[in-house]
Amino acid sequence: MSTKKTVADYIIDIPDFPEPGIIFRDITGVLNDAEGLRLAVDEMQSRLEGVEFDKIIGLESRGFLLGMPIAYNLGKPFVPVRKVGKLPRTTIRKAYDLEYGTAEIEVHADDIRPGEKVVIIDDLIATGGTIRAAADIVESLGAEVACMVCLLELKGLNGRAVLEKYDVKTVIQYEGK
Amino acid sequence: MSTKKTVADYIIDIPDFPEPGIIFRDITGVLNDAEGLRLAVDEMQSRLEGVEFDKIIGLESRGFLLGMPIAYNLGKPFVPVRKVGKLPRTTIRKAYDLEYGTAEIEVHADDIRPGEKVVIIDDLIATGGTIRAAADIVESLGAEVACMVCLLELKGLNGRAVLEKYDVKTVIQYEGK
Repeated sequence: MSTKKTVADYIIDIPDFPEPGIIFRDITGVLNDAEGLRLAVDEMQSRLEGVEFDKIIGLESRGFLLGMPIAYNLGKPFVPVRKVGKLPRTTIRKAYDLEYGTAEIEVHADDIRPGEKVVIIDDLIATGGTIRAAADIVESLGAEVACMVCLLELKGLNGRAVLEKYDVKTVIQYEGK
Repeated sequence: MSTKKTVADYIIDIPDFPEPGIIFRDITGVLNDAEGLRLAVDEMQSRLEGVEFDKIIGLESRGFLLGMPIAYNLGKPFVPVRKVGKLPRTTIRKAYDLEYGTAEIEVHADDIRPGEKVVIIDDLIATGGTIRAAADIVESLGAEVACMVCLLELKGLNGRAVLEKYDVKTVIQYEGK
């Protein structure tokens, strides 16, 4: 009788947020269920089997939620990529286009070292702008992007186009935007 | 020969950030070390031994970093407390005084249910304003704060005064501000 739920079953669709015509895929329904939370982390973590890497970087702030349990589970360091002005030490910044407007992110310059292999984690690939900016920072510091893992992907926004040279893994793909 | 490091050894002290006279306690040095990260999560998690609770709520965004691995490890749901405007569904808000200025946080109103026992997690207790606001939201939804766990506490700011009625656990205490 019981049908096993997948992570996708815990996503809450919010029509017309933040703008008319957009369906916001709300992951708080995943997190606010012990089994949904476990599934999301385990599914993302399974994408890293066989991937050799030194540390995880997570994008503020939903990448923090998903990146940290994986870093803990795999015994890897975690580096936060933050909106500007929040990190107290010397940073390296990168501006990028958002789906709605523009923004800038930064990383502590000494948190990533030349030659390191880095996994980038976020909740969502939409246009790919944010995660691409994070990858640019990683590379400008002489490190390498081992792969990118996101829970969701909005295929209609074609983020893969700007991420072509990376190994991108996503758990749930939506056809639209 | 080797001296075992504690979590405190991984904290990076930043003088005069964000204002002259303030020492910022930077936890990115903890996270960017596999052992520091493990110690921080394990120490905080150990404060929950014997505590009966239903879910963890974490404060954006350093409470996300520390709360999620604990939620995963203990098989509990996680609810994010966010700055306003980021949560897509109906929320309940609470304004509070910051160490520098004022701010407002919110939680999805249906993410916490009457009678639930909630653990609140953040990185730091300074004046206690933010975590107290989160507790007020929890209680206004008819739930109960089982306890609060933070990695750091700045005793000189006397956050305990506004948190008197709560069971507050912190891993590292600094005498000053």
